[in-house]
Amino acid sequence: MITLSDVYIIGAGETKFGELWDKSLRNLAVEAGLKAIENAGIYSKDIDIIYGANGLAGVINKQENIGALIADFSGLSEEGIPAIRIEASTASGAAAVHEAYLAIKSGEYNVAVVGGVEKMTDIHGHEINEIMSSILDREWESFYGATPASMAALIARKYMKDFNIEKEALSMISVNDHENASRNPDAQYRNKISLKQAMESVMVADPLTLMDCSPISDGAAAIVLASEDFVKRNKKDGVKILASAIAEDYLDVGSRKSIYTFNSTKKAARLAFDRAGIKSDDVSFAEIHDSFSIYGLLALEDLGFADKGNAKDLVYDEIKLSGRIPLNPSGGLKAKGDPYGAVGVGQFVEAYLQLMEKAGDRQVKSPRYGLLHNMAGTGATSVVHILGD
Amino acid sequence: MITLSDVYIIGAGETKFGELWDKSLRNLAVEAGLKAIENAGIYSKDIDIIYGANGLAGVINKQENIGALIADFSGLSEEGIPAIRIEASTASGAAAVHEAYLAIKSGEYNVAVVGGVEKMTDIHGHEINEIMSSILDREWESFYGATPASMAALIARKYMKDFNIEKEALSMISVNDHENASRNPDAQYRNKISLKQAMESVMVADPLTLMDCSPISDGAAAIVLASEDFVKRNKKDGVKILASAIAEDYLDVGSRKSIYTFNSTKKAARLAFDRAGIKSDDVSFAEIHDSFSIYGLLALEDLGFADKGNAKDLVYDEIKLSGRIPLNPSGGLKAKGDPYGAVGVGQFVEAYLQLMEKAGDRQVKSPRYGLLHNMAGTGATSVVHILGD
Repeated sequence: MITLSDVYIIGAGETKFGELWDKSLRNLAVEAGLKAIENAGIYSKDIDIIYGANGLAGVINKQENIGALIADFSGLSEEGIPAIRIEASTASGAAAVHEAYLAIKSGEYNVAVVGGVEKMTDIHGHEINEIMSSILDREWESFYGATPASMAALIARKYMKDFNIEKEALSMISVNDHENASRNPDAQYRNKISLKQAMESVMVADPLTLMDCSPISDGAAAIVLASEDFVKRNKKDGVKILASAIAEDYLDVGSRKSIYTFNSTKKAARLAFDRAGIKSDDVSFAEIHDSFSIYGLLALEDLGFADKGNAKDLVYDEIKLSGRIPLNPSGGLKAKGDPYGAVGVGQFVEAYLQLMEKAGDRQVKSPRYGLLHNMAGTGATSVVHILGD
Repeated sequence: MITLSDVYIIGAGETKFGELWDKSLRNLAVEAGLKAIENAGIYSKDIDIIYGANGLAGVINKQENIGALIADFSGLSEEGIPAIRIEASTASGAAAVHEAYLAIKSGEYNVAVVGGVEKMTDIHGHEINEIMSSILDREWESFYGATPASMAALIARKYMKDFNIEKEALSMISVNDHENASRNPDAQYRNKISLKQAMESVMVADPLTLMDCSPISDGAAAIVLASEDFVKRNKKDGVKILASAIAEDYLDVGSRKSIYTFNSTKKAARLAFDRAGIKSDDVSFAEIHDSFSIYGLLALEDLGFADKGNAKDLVYDEIKLSGRIPLNPSGGLKAKGDPYGAVGVGQFVEAYLQLMEKAGDRQVKSPRYGLLHNMAGTGATSVVHILGD
């Protein structure tokens, strides 16, 4: 009788995030994949299945069949290793990890490689805005001109009005991201920014300024997941996935009961905490999906670190690397970068480094549990993972 | 201690396949999904996870985030049910079933809905050809002008030369598809065609004529999968998934050892037969991926029903509904239709009807095992399922 296996992360790797004009979609995917495989110390014959996370290659690169592409270019096609692409918009990365987690738990596979990749900087100007809007509801939102930034601005306005929040609270999320990114060699922007710089940067969609918005990025990240059996047999060291949960909300923001409470995040967090058997107070650090600074505040609340309207109290000290709940030690989406399909997997790379205590200058002190929050677009899908040892 | 569950199909439904100009992507997905849910006799609160299969919405409909879209429009967002899109090009459908199968086997979910959808006829002429070519290797094949049809023609030429095969053998695959589709109310083309008509139809890519090529189609299909526990608790009738296997080959045909042996199909078939514990002789009917008639011959061989070069001996009598190995009782990709993301799920709808002995005029006599073969593009990915009771 086969029983359900625990699932471990035994290796991780990523490319630098940024404007990588000399690397193609497949270059990036393979670079990250090979780093993770090497880091895990496994061979290609050990790999049972590959999950590729990608949000936009169909639109940007005119390339579908991404799973096969990655397997091919990694030199793994000869072995016939199955490769499947998971698309859940900007949450594709963590959704792919969820699928790999299920694949190993099912007993059908022992070792899964999850690679997330996005190549976004080949297209510029209004065109990338139009393309990014494909993650919104095409018929009810983007058709009328809504973009991810304008939706975030709308949400921010209403939130700031109802809870009497100053713009400063939003900006502090970005200040913290840049502070941490300055210590992350893979980050797209390693410059620190002052609160004044963040507040006074150019307007994008009122009240959001440039420093409230994540950049357009290229990049890839990969991790290797393995069953308990494989870990024991091969004496591997790793980080355990204690919970993997996904939940959904309406795709169009207008259908939701509240535009600043992301029910998908709340539900996924509740499921994850239940499954892991821990509380938000137990979390040592969190990587959250702050594609816009407002989403950083909302995530802190919807994940249970603050009551609704109170995240502002955490943004000065508590979220620092030395604070009660270190937020985005990697630099987050604002400063590490936001290559859609790679973001969620990149969070795992950071959490793996943190929990293995290999995060160098940005190491959180003796972390026990890491929480990862990856979100699609304006909150239609949220994926929450809790990792530990 | 939780143990691994068997997985059952407890409901199935699909839209008509065809040129459905009055229905949008979401209309189609929801129509099929609701039919399957109603057929299964379950409620929305029973559904734990949704898998959406789609190949091209990013390119055609400028809509990514397909999982969330389907959940939303099905009225399931309120419950927060997770929804994930699986993309494996034209094998997206069966790949999504594989993921749902793993999800249930993992013990994390009890009931999964898999919906495949594609909306392809809104775009015409050379543009759809360009878009369909996104399933090939963009940098090594489609960039140079290769299309799915021209690649299939290349493969057919070499196969016909090496094994001295007449065009007639290819055409008989299409004749059989149309014969069966004439009995399927959901099929795009219900007209029977004669061998002469198939042979003399207009040339598309020499030696492939129009009747060797699957059409451009809209359509959606959905099935409901459930755990053994759910089936017993709710006294459901269903069809058991005995094996679910995926394998990969090089994305670009030029890298393969043989261009008319699809290693992905061979490997997935071997895995599936092993896992199900049956042989090809035991199969009562097969639904195979004949987007071009040549692929019908190759599938018969790579799946183990004939030796390489000998599929021609099966195409006159053996593949008929009354023959030894009834092929595509649904009408196959040529005549039932070829809406990319829906095709693989549609094969399950057919197999479910056949194995429940509810396939009406096209019922195969007392079937025991059904084999389903769904393939991506020119064979980069193959998914093989074996169903039984």
